[in-house]
Amino acid sequence: MNTFQFQNPTRIIFGPGTVDTLAEQLAEYGKRVLLIYGGGSIKASGLYDQVQSQLKQAGAVVHELAGVEPNPRVSTVRKGIALCREHQLDFILAVGGGSVLDAAKAVAVGVPYEGDVWDFLTYKAEIKSALPLGTVLTLTATGSEMNGSSVITNWEENLKKAFGSIHAYPKFSILDPTWTFTVPANQTVNGIVDMMSHVFEQYFSLTSDTPLQERLCESILQTVIENGELALKQPDNYAARANLMLCGTYALNGGMISVGMQNDWASHMIEHEISAIYDIAHAEGLSILFPNWMKYVHKERIDRFVQFAVRVWNVDPAGKSDEDIALAGIQATRDYFTRIGAPASLGDLKIDGKDLERMAKETVRYGPVGSFKKLNEEDVRQILELSL
Amino acid sequence: MNTFQFQNPTRIIFGPGTVDTLAEQLAEYGKRVLLIYGGGSIKASGLYDQVQSQLKQAGAVVHELAGVEPNPRVSTVRKGIALCREHQLDFILAVGGGSVLDAAKAVAVGVPYEGDVWDFLTYKAEIKSALPLGTVLTLTATGSEMNGSSVITNWEENLKKAFGSIHAYPKFSILDPTWTFTVPANQTVNGIVDMMSHVFEQYFSLTSDTPLQERLCESILQTVIENGELALKQPDNYAARANLMLCGTYALNGGMISVGMQNDWASHMIEHEISAIYDIAHAEGLSILFPNWMKYVHKERIDRFVQFAVRVWNVDPAGKSDEDIALAGIQATRDYFTRIGAPASLGDLKIDGKDLERMAKETVRYGPVGSFKKLNEEDVRQILELSL
Repeated sequence: MNTFQFQNPTRIIFGPGTVDTLAEQLAEYGKRVLLIYGGGSIKASGLYDQVQSQLKQAGAVVHELAGVEPNPRVSTVRKGIALCREHQLDFILAVGGGSVLDAAKAVAVGVPYEGDVWDFLTYKAEIKSALPLGTVLTLTATGSEMNGSSVITNWEENLKKAFGSIHAYPKFSILDPTWTFTVPANQTVNGIVDMMSHVFEQYFSLTSDTPLQERLCESILQTVIENGELALKQPDNYAARANLMLCGTYALNGGMISVGMQNDWASHMIEHEISAIYDIAHAEGLSILFPNWMKYVHKERIDRFVQFAVRVWNVDPAGKSDEDIALAGIQATRDYFTRIGAPASLGDLKIDGKDLERMAKETVRYGPVGSFKKLNEEDVRQILELSL
Repeated sequence: MNTFQFQNPTRIIFGPGTVDTLAEQLAEYGKRVLLIYGGGSIKASGLYDQVQSQLKQAGAVVHELAGVEPNPRVSTVRKGIALCREHQLDFILAVGGGSVLDAAKAVAVGVPYEGDVWDFLTYKAEIKSALPLGTVLTLTATGSEMNGSSVITNWEENLKKAFGSIHAYPKFSILDPTWTFTVPANQTVNGIVDMMSHVFEQYFSLTSDTPLQERLCESILQTVIENGELALKQPDNYAARANLMLCGTYALNGGMISVGMQNDWASHMIEHEISAIYDIAHAEGLSILFPNWMKYVHKERIDRFVQFAVRVWNVDPAGKSDEDIALAGIQATRDYFTRIGAPASLGDLKIDGKDLERMAKETVRYGPVGSFKKLNEEDVRQILELSL
């Protein structure tokens, strides 16, 4: 186990009807609110009205930034920052999924910064403060509700980059699994792939002597695997939706499940280069890439892949070589993704190999990626080729 | 899963040499410090000097409350409160194990309260604020380093009571496993029993649909079981000590592993009545009581005890009845405690049955205890009798 610091100050309020606590949560903060949301789904579901009613109860002055897109754009973030400055807003309320929350975080850190918010995504400036942020989560996936990370896309430059800061943790996040009952199946699938991928990035690590962390990761994976299929079959099964929602939050909440472990994140970085060019869902890219990444790197530490196969996928090790067990676990991952309807190749999304060299090159723009196996441009190219 | 709120704002700094970050951690707080510690062990180990050197580097004015006892006393807490008021101190630094940290929390919440701190332990007053508190942990056991709970004993009244408050969470806790190398074997044993008991109180729950939380609990138990014996055999095995330390922290950090689950805590409440009369270590009482509590209540939810036996103790279920599997898991718990040297009966500690009625009566002073099975006075008496 490596030396580490861990802190996660976000308060989560979890359960049916918890949106009714919003006014109470807002009481300790400013009353000039920027309400950020995505498409019209929160209006169709009635959540928008409930949130507005709570804001009214809190006596808030509300301005809106609507229409945040999947893979949220820096141009949208800049609009939010301008609104906050123009109307002297002092609190951000994000209602939506990971994209809305990520955009809200970027607005929150951007407002008190005198330069352009994109500087934070390109390591040109350090985040020193932020407006306070609260969230109401409508989609189980990214863990953004309980971490300080955000991923933003710059379409002018075809770049998708991430930042993380203790200042960007939401002050509170309201998680009501019943709002996820109406999430379309394909988005539920994406959420499942997303949270499993977050665990993979932490679990496949060269750091030794981390038995608790490994088990915490396996606990989430097993629970997602069981409840993911159940939620797809029974979209309004509260237990399944609640279990998934908790898994999504714990899978990526400031590193709680992988404290003291070196994380990898190469697959995420490769995926960002795919979805920076093609407007596909992040999780679609991950579903395609991850089993191929696993195949490419598994020999670096075969014991972790053997453990993964046996503990997470119940692969029977009897009479099998380590290599066979490891490959069976990787195949089980691919099969699960396919079974729930996630794509297995770039071809499935009608993406051919023409941008492959460019994506590989951009992935390693700041140097090799990953830590389980450090990947250079040629490694990335090969993983992308396996993914065609 | 029940509706819940969860927040744990404590920053943990974990690893060898992290005491050297103390001055840096102190930078954001006041400079008038009450340093709280227990017996002389931190002076013998050299930790005291290191802490003083960091305090000097931070430019702090330091007053001391030394000699905090195991089962810390409200009389000691009152001394600390008086020191803070007399010298207008604005930060508490606790260096020690759970007792020192618990005393420090009581001082922290007591200073800004105009009444007597004991009011918080007897539900006569609500905690509304506290002095900021930092800790350096020297003993793996109670999880006090990352929660808002404290247990305080009042010898005048033979009462041992607990409080919990979001205001009592340490601002930061420094956890360096190397300082636990020299912890005597019996205290290491107590720590192991303590953290396992904390998990038991959460894991044995009637709340349904909590598969992630159950696995998180099992993850900690399995890791403690493996690393506890290793740490006893090799007291300076860093990995074993670090794994135990992380388990202790995660086992009781504001309920992270059991969010949305009703907890039990009956065994702790019974134990408090034993150690309020006899000055035994809390964990000794728990080691005696817990397997007896398990035997007494296991029929309430046999499936959880079957799962416990199979997943945590690797009991082979083939050809066994649920009852047999459950009992095998309970016996495995008792055997493990015995194997590491923890007591199995009150008789082992030369305690006879003379105060049994009084302890049973006091346990239910505020009504029946526990939730897995609600225990009335007669139930408690029977569990105590099983423990003679």
